[in-house]
Amino acid sequence: MSDTLQKLQWRYATKKFDPTRKLSPEQLEYILEAIRLTATSSGLQPYEVLVVNNPELRARIQPHAWNQAQVTEASHLLVFAAWDNYTAERINAMFDLVNEARGFRNEGWENYRNFLLQTYPPRDPEVNFQHAARQAYIGLGSALIAAAELKVDCTPMEGFDPDKVDEILDLRARGLRSVLMLPLGYRAEQGDWLVDLKKVRRAREQFVTEID
Amino acid sequence: MSDTLQKLQWRYATKKFDPTRKLSPEQLEYILEAIRLTATSSGLQPYEVLVVNNPELRARIQPHAWNQAQVTEASHLLVFAAWDNYTAERINAMFDLVNEARGFRNEGWENYRNFLLQTYPPRDPEVNFQHAARQAYIGLGSALIAAAELKVDCTPMEGFDPDKVDEILDLRARGLRSVLMLPLGYRAEQGDWLVDLKKVRRAREQFVTEID
Repeated sequence: MSDTLQKLQWRYATKKFDPTRKLSPEQLEYILEAIRLTATSSGLQPYEVLVVNNPELRARIQPHAWNQAQVTEASHLLVFAAWDNYTAERINAMFDLVNEARGFRNEGWENYRNFLLQTYPPRDPEVNFQHAARQAYIGLGSALIAAAELKVDCTPMEGFDPDKVDEILDLRARGLRSVLMLPLGYRAEQGDWLVDLKKVRRAREQFVTEID
Repeated sequence: MSDTLQKLQWRYATKKFDPTRKLSPEQLEYILEAIRLTATSSGLQPYEVLVVNNPELRARIQPHAWNQAQVTEASHLLVFAAWDNYTAERINAMFDLVNEARGFRNEGWENYRNFLLQTYPPRDPEVNFQHAARQAYIGLGSALIAAAELKVDCTPMEGFDPDKVDEILDLRARGLRSVLMLPLGYRAEQGDWLVDLKKVRRAREQFVTEID
């Protein structure tokens, strides 16, 4: 068993962080880069990551996250917040950035831009938000591996009231809606009921089907 | 720059596969394991992965996937298919498996089982499917890194008609709905318009916000 699988075996959803141990700035940046660099649909990167350092804001979030102590005790708290809608402005900004970085305009790429402009903005904003929200989960999958590489613990969290988190972080004014949280830090020496329990997954035969 | 970030820099959405080059069985299993082992909400693993080897089925899917040749030319075609609903049976099966693997029943865990049983099955099946579908994207994020570790190319794909793919693979009868496809293989030496183009992502400052 090698590398990526070892990292996945090592990680677990940390239930109790050591509040005295902090990530270095370089460690934090490494994990953020693993999110930023991974794939998103059409390369639009339709979400942002908030690093919530303010202790008061984290204390205000905690009761709206089933009172999970990781929100305040972890070293860092990431919030993945998806675009509330696909707008022409947002789509054009990404296609313009690509053209600028590559130094030329490509006809196929421009046709694809127009296809998205004709398809996404007229749709129900809720459909667009749901699509954008899914992309954040790819970033989460990437962050879990990057954190494990650094032996940094984390807890993927959906269990919070997104409307409350949006309000506390003023996300709606920025056209964002919270989707996921990821406290990052180091497991506590004691008090984590999950740390020593076996990781359980369905057997390969119950998870994978080959159609020959 | 190290490891996970190098893998993410290396990968790209392959546009043209070499139809003569195949993954070894070990490579395929490695990537499937990276999907199976990563996190899902409450550990329910609410999706399955189909490995579609049958050439006729792949040929039938292609026209419903914007005619993208990767569907038929890649070495392997993975289809991520999410549960169409959370049922008591599915939730209980996972909690029972955990108890069996760990060899004991934990009161907190049983309370959590009951919370999910009271919460998920009564909800609109579409809400449950959307939630399950998101989890497949974590698996995709994991697969992208595992494939890159092996220098295996792939193309994350949402661009297909899920109803048609469900029909072709008879997924609805199994309580599944297609969400993502991932052709795996080796890039063609020639004919891939994207292979030499710069990977473009929004700058860190446009993607990450620190709230101090």
